[in-house]
Amino acid sequence: MVTKIPDMAGAARAFIFLLEARDWDAFAALLHPEVVYELPQTRERIRGRDAYLRFNQEFPGDWHLDPTTVVADADHGVVRFDCRVEDESAEAIAFLDFDAEGCITRVTDFWPESYAPPAGREQLVERW
Amino acid sequence: MVTKIPDMAGAARAFIFLLEARDWDAFAALLHPEVVYELPQTRERIRGRDAYLRFNQEFPGDWHLDPTTVVADADHGVVRFDCRVEDESAEAIAFLDFDAEGCITRVTDFWPESYAPPAGREQLVERW
Repeated sequence: MVTKIPDMAGAARAFIFLLEARDWDAFAALLHPEVVYELPQTRERIRGRDAYLRFNQEFPGDWHLDPTTVVADADHGVVRFDCRVEDESAEAIAFLDFDAEGCITRVTDFWPESYAPPAGREQLVERW
Repeated sequence: MVTKIPDMAGAARAFIFLLEARDWDAFAALLHPEVVYELPQTRERIRGRDAYLRFNQEFPGDWHLDPTTVVADADHGVVRFDCRVEDESAEAIAFLDFDAEGCITRVTDFWPESYAPPAGREQLVERW
């Protein structure tokens, strides 16, 4: 008997690669039918694989995703990725929850924006 | 012989709890002397435990931190946490890199801000 041990880090990386490839069938196969997608910054929520798939398929722009850091344990994965649209590049973070079979049951995205450094700590920091 | 296996999830949680407790000695003990702290959103970098400790000790406001999600593997930890300052609450994310002894060698913070949901996907989303 072979016990399948799900590879959560691999699944988290595949999540980004399959989005980038627009390989919708393989992407959908990662997702639980009742997957919940949340964007805490806009307080938006999408319920179900079909709606979440459509959200990604219809997302405007010629976006390109590239994972930079993946951290995973038995139940969760986190992937930091670059998102490039033409000349603009941004960094984003997705938290993934997995069920016992390794299906993604929840996706929580963060899209942090640049801001000006607060005054008063210039003596401690360097800029890049 | 006992081989010490560092508990990265515990260290990631302790990172937030010890900041919240202002327990600076115990907090410093988690950090490598050459720890690097980065804030990609402002492109600020702080080098070394002493400067990073001072940055936290001098951070203005009566801030309170509470971890909500911890994900860790052998080399990395990620902690999502709520940061409350008086009546204002925000969510933040810290990525931690560990060395072989479990010391934190790098901290990368993200502070995502709220924004208005883009138009054109109202039919797919609910708000909360």
